[in-house]
Amino acid sequence: MLDYFFTPRSVAVLGASNDPLKLGYEVFKNLKEYKGKVYPVNIKDEVVQGVKAYKNVKDIPDEVDLAVIVVPKRFVKQSLIDCGEKGVKGVIIITAGFGEMGEEGKKEERELVEIAHKYGMRIIGPNCVGVMDTHSNLNATFIMNAKKGSVAFISQSGALGAGIVYKTIKEDIGFSKFISVGNMSDVDFADLMEYLAEDENSKAIALYIEGIKDGRRFMEVAKRVSKKKPIIALKAGKSESGARAASSHTGSLAGSYAIYEAAFKQSGILVANTIDEMLSMARAFTQPLPKGKRVAIMTNAGGPGVLTADEIDKRGLKLANLEEETMQKLRSFLPPMAAVKNPVDMIASARGEEYYKTAKLLLEDENVDMLIAICVVPTFAGMTPTEHAEGVIRAVKEVTNGKPVLALFMAGYVSEKAKELLEKEEIPTYERPEDVGVAAYALAEFAKSKGVVKE
Amino acid sequence: MLDYFFTPRSVAVLGASNDPLKLGYEVFKNLKEYKGKVYPVNIKDEVVQGVKAYKNVKDIPDEVDLAVIVVPKRFVKQSLIDCGEKGVKGVIIITAGFGEMGEEGKKEERELVEIAHKYGMRIIGPNCVGVMDTHSNLNATFIMNAKKGSVAFISQSGALGAGIVYKTIKEDIGFSKFISVGNMSDVDFADLMEYLAEDENSKAIALYIEGIKDGRRFMEVAKRVSKKKPIIALKAGKSESGARAASSHTGSLAGSYAIYEAAFKQSGILVANTIDEMLSMARAFTQPLPKGKRVAIMTNAGGPGVLTADEIDKRGLKLANLEEETMQKLRSFLPPMAAVKNPVDMIASARGEEYYKTAKLLLEDENVDMLIAICVVPTFAGMTPTEHAEGVIRAVKEVTNGKPVLALFMAGYVSEKAKELLEKEEIPTYERPEDVGVAAYALAEFAKSKGVVKE
Repeated sequence: MLDYFFTPRSVAVLGASNDPLKLGYEVFKNLKEYKGKVYPVNIKDEVVQGVKAYKNVKDIPDEVDLAVIVVPKRFVKQSLIDCGEKGVKGVIIITAGFGEMGEEGKKEERELVEIAHKYGMRIIGPNCVGVMDTHSNLNATFIMNAKKGSVAFISQSGALGAGIVYKTIKEDIGFSKFISVGNMSDVDFADLMEYLAEDENSKAIALYIEGIKDGRRFMEVAKRVSKKKPIIALKAGKSESGARAASSHTGSLAGSYAIYEAAFKQSGILVANTIDEMLSMARAFTQPLPKGKRVAIMTNAGGPGVLTADEIDKRGLKLANLEEETMQKLRSFLPPMAAVKNPVDMIASARGEEYYKTAKLLLEDENVDMLIAICVVPTFAGMTPTEHAEGVIRAVKEVTNGKPVLALFMAGYVSEKAKELLEKEEIPTYERPEDVGVAAYALAEFAKSKGVVKE
Repeated sequence: MLDYFFTPRSVAVLGASNDPLKLGYEVFKNLKEYKGKVYPVNIKDEVVQGVKAYKNVKDIPDEVDLAVIVVPKRFVKQSLIDCGEKGVKGVIIITAGFGEMGEEGKKEERELVEIAHKYGMRIIGPNCVGVMDTHSNLNATFIMNAKKGSVAFISQSGALGAGIVYKTIKEDIGFSKFISVGNMSDVDFADLMEYLAEDENSKAIALYIEGIKDGRRFMEVAKRVSKKKPIIALKAGKSESGARAASSHTGSLAGSYAIYEAAFKQSGILVANTIDEMLSMARAFTQPLPKGKRVAIMTNAGGPGVLTADEIDKRGLKLANLEEETMQKLRSFLPPMAAVKNPVDMIASARGEEYYKTAKLLLEDENVDMLIAICVVPTFAGMTPTEHAEGVIRAVKEVTNGKPVLALFMAGYVSEKAKELLEKEEIPTYERPEDVGVAAYALAEFAKSKGVVKE
């Protein structure tokens, strides 16, 4: 239903510019990469960035599905009317200076929504960074492309959203869509959750929330959508000081965090406490759901195994009690110093072959619902973490009983290539015990809500 | 007193090797970069990596302060005796297979300590990665050089320690010393804390602990040292599952975490819950101590300001109530949409000049004890976070009233250069609200323990 925001046949940029210091320059530059048709609208210039420009959106000799408005504030209203007369379906208003400015701005914003609805249009924004779809290659924002992936990310703070897009470009997490909702004058979290529930490219929905206006509808939709697809929410303004700051920032009433948290839980939403928790949980859902809460940990060093066991415990998951047979088989090829009890410590000498055999045995063990494969930097000369990653991947391909596997590769850039390999196989790979812990928790919790895991 | 482990005049490597698949190869290769004299000892080869080798440490025609033993286990005892006869002062035993192997190994380990003490030698290890001093340029390990910095890091897990050294190479944190203590047969946490208390290059001491043997002495020393220098501890094995895993890993009794935590707190140790908390806290101490708990936050985007306010609150710190005058002055040059109440939201248009003026005013405000300067990716074309960093640095240089400043630059590699600038000025720079929050907490907590902060 909101398809025209993500896969429009054609896009017009009102305020497309030749001046690199203007947002309209970046927006049009980004949109030129889109596979659909893109039209610059500029009141003065006849050509924008090498493309024939139109004085008015109505002059475009083609249907326009999506319009991006990035003109100065005083021209926004007329631009929107022009879009309506043109028959545009979706409008992204990047321009700021509306609801976030106080009562007068709120009134102007309501007027924009009335105009839009009169013409049957929907608005994302105003005061937003825009919208990205990494699968259709649409970047209707003024920021860099997000890394492609499976998480739909909706942010109520444009700058924070942008910061997260930038931060993750070099991390093992990608987005299907990034939607900066700005003031949420029209299209809001509920609309987007509803839409994303049906989006095949999005395996999970991550929300950064500062304040919600229509709590009842939000909950009603979240309850429905979270039965199909995991929703993870990070709410800013937990503390009193934070809430006060949030309220002055977005103008929306932050409300007590306790109320939000209860509402999230009632709606089947997974609650994140930090940005990294939100991202760690969301990207776990490339994996199948576990049938229970029993986790097996394999590692080439004791310390990280212990730290991960701590996190598993903290999150209410359990260390699996391995079958006698599994332990005997592990004992048969692991060195005497190895620990064959869960967490299985294969010790530093473990190579790709040990990773493969151990992962396979653990996945085949009936007491194991989920596997976490840890690799700290191999300390022996001549080894690289890539062979460890390959061992895990080989086991995952051979054992097809649908158990989720998460990886924890803990040596910064030294394990970059290994992480790329795992990522290619859609095995979520983390760098910190707490991140993999919360990811395992998210899988089990969502499985529980779907009745896959019985408490 | 333990100087010979970190700044020896000469080092011998027993087991130095020409075979790149042996640890003795990496150890000698790393040590060749050391400014002091380095002698390879190898029973067969006459030359190791281009350097004349000796059959026995006793053949070296020079005094030897430090010996690194990386020979196969069956030769360790005799090697140690040779070192004793040679008059070596400190011995790092990298070779594994002792106390961690059970009763027999424990006995052999005790024997090593007896031999060492008989000759007046001290042992670090066995079963360790070795020792690094980034200031003397000594790398007596088989892993890559750590980044140079101000944190002394002692790890009871060699692999985890190595993983952390690798992970931090590309982060804004450096180490003065990295000490992998292995089985702690002789030199232990207490000895090292005592030594590091006097080490000018170490501004804070970070400990990764799996289990402590002599709790009484540990506490007694920690109590004394933490009066001078902050000690931050991360204890693995918090949960029952984790504790069981830890105990099977190091052979040391993990004990109840509650007991450890109480002991840490009584000893003035700051408790970290994760690796990143430990590192975030430790590297804050390049800054002066705050005189109180009132934090000012400045930001170019609301969201991160709110998240940081939440973390400040969670850690028992307070948002400073700014002076009327400060807010008036901020109002005079910040745009109307900016928030001049703490957290000060300078909004996205803020450039270096606004960062400079705002930081200066906040540092001069008598109600402010500590400043957190946040920069999310600048969303306007032509801006880079470097000018924002420069603004903060300029303010810090002008306002010399000794207030700590922490930075939060949240855009991954987009803010890399800005972070480098801040790092050069020793302003700790974080990427996540929770990290800067725990860092501010650590500064205030240590200041409190020294009586600088009353409360």
